[in-house]
Amino acid sequence: MTSSEFELIQNYFTGLGEGEAVRLGIGDDAAVLQVPAGHVLQISTDTALEGTHFSANLPAADIAYRSVMAAASDLAAMGAVPMASLLSLTLPEANSDWLRDFSTGLGTACAEIGLPLVGGDTTRGPLAITVTVMGSTPADQFMTRSGAEPGDRLCVSGTPGDAAAGLEILKGDLLVADDAISAALAARFRRPDARLTLGQTLREIASACIDISDGLLADAGHLATCSGVAIEIDSSLLPLSEALCSVIDMQQAKDWALAGGDDYELLFTLPRNAPLPAGCTQIGRVVSGSGISCDHVPELAGYDHFAH
Amino acid sequence: MTSSEFELIQNYFTGLGEGEAVRLGIGDDAAVLQVPAGHVLQISTDTALEGTHFSANLPAADIAYRSVMAAASDLAAMGAVPMASLLSLTLPEANSDWLRDFSTGLGTACAEIGLPLVGGDTTRGPLAITVTVMGSTPADQFMTRSGAEPGDRLCVSGTPGDAAAGLEILKGDLLVADDAISAALAARFRRPDARLTLGQTLREIASACIDISDGLLADAGHLATCSGVAIEIDSSLLPLSEALCSVIDMQQAKDWALAGGDDYELLFTLPRNAPLPAGCTQIGRVVSGSGISCDHVPELAGYDHFAH
Repeated sequence: MTSSEFELIQNYFTGLGEGEAVRLGIGDDAAVLQVPAGHVLQISTDTALEGTHFSANLPAADIAYRSVMAAASDLAAMGAVPMASLLSLTLPEANSDWLRDFSTGLGTACAEIGLPLVGGDTTRGPLAITVTVMGSTPADQFMTRSGAEPGDRLCVSGTPGDAAAGLEILKGDLLVADDAISAALAARFRRPDARLTLGQTLREIASACIDISDGLLADAGHLATCSGVAIEIDSSLLPLSEALCSVIDMQQAKDWALAGGDDYELLFTLPRNAPLPAGCTQIGRVVSGSGISCDHVPELAGYDHFAH
Repeated sequence: MTSSEFELIQNYFTGLGEGEAVRLGIGDDAAVLQVPAGHVLQISTDTALEGTHFSANLPAADIAYRSVMAAASDLAAMGAVPMASLLSLTLPEANSDWLRDFSTGLGTACAEIGLPLVGGDTTRGPLAITVTVMGSTPADQFMTRSGAEPGDRLCVSGTPGDAAAGLEILKGDLLVADDAISAALAARFRRPDARLTLGQTLREIASACIDISDGLLADAGHLATCSGVAIEIDSSLLPLSEALCSVIDMQQAKDWALAGGDDYELLFTLPRNAPLPAGCTQIGRVVSGSGISCDHVPELAGYDHFAH
């Protein structure tokens, strides 16, 4: 292998670093960012590992795209406007084809949501991608998981469950005759959208918000715990997509909507008089107490990296 | 294994998150930080992998301590005051003894330099530690690698080479009869100090700065490239420690000082009239041209993760 770490990074990643908040991008000991006056900074990090978060045969562009959107989804849940990102990339080898494909997916995702890449680290080892994202909101206008109150409505964006179906399709465990439907569901796993615009709308009206990365039930549980409330979900209200309902039975569709991860939709609570934004659906309500129930049955938490 | 990811993180890491700049710490979708008015944010990330950056038998507390200091060293090189950190921890298993030891080292390092831990991610896989650090400086007072001018002096802090000797001792490849000297050199690898106070002093007087993580020659090369200058180093001026000189011959000591990584000292350039801070030594000078030379011999770059 002849390309050095520095050349490799420069070749593929330095073109992605332009942005209004960026005072100094890739190439020094640290990046330098200017947070707008009167604003606070939101920061979050997500690690994706081959075998755990994606399979070895997922195209490099999809791995990159998903990693950026998964991290940016945490900014969406806070109501933040994207500012900059860092990439820590651990690679088994410096394969220039793979890197070109990866950087294309990275560049596409960063461009779509206005998230310049300002730094990172490259090391040699088992494939792992850590994306750190920064955003900003006016000083007192960020959302948290902890503001839900009894009487609030529980709402979700989009059509959860599609990403779980997409993953089954990509794994070859779900065969779908209609190529267009198959591709559309697979794309929900390969190319999730961070709901940044919705998050910025919600920060004016929602009482609490979380993104669905662990699964709707599990993330509803986190929101309930942080807010000190109970949440009741009515599975008959779940906004299941036509595509999802066309490829599996209703019970499986509901299970994936409730327990499948990777949707990166927003789950949020709305006070009584707040308007429901377009593309969102009420699926339950906030009550006094603790824990979550679905169709009156208490539920336990979802996927946990160390519990099995 | 019974402890969940969330309990594990809460048990060991949530106590480390207090700090002046922290509006919201661990436990939500993102942390929220308040950058002081008139200041800019510096951010950098460093990944350490078992087998590449440390050996499997290094105590967990040392692994954590080194990871924090290696990342914070990048803040030192910018002249930044530490503000907050994130930890992405990939672990083969949730071993509570190892985690307790790791969190002790993490807490010690974070407390020593005033760097609260405000978030992160925990995943299951081959041991990897990614630490992201944030700091701040007044808006126009951060250092970069790119301000060196012909006529400036090249200076270094501390006594480089000690960490390389310490690593050889820890590996069992260098046997030192004197236990105190052996322990002192090993500690330079196990427990490096990020030169944050020095960095804050230098940002008023230095023209360029970089931390020595890849090795003095390699990092001098980065500084020269970024500044568009050449650098001449005189190896007879290298500040070798008594401990280092007592355990190996002079040539090896110089080689480790020039090419060993892991010192996390600062390498910087001072304009003609700037005072040399205490504990620092002039080891060369900046001239017109490009590249670096040591004792009039041109040098190539140091350690590179992908070049071998």
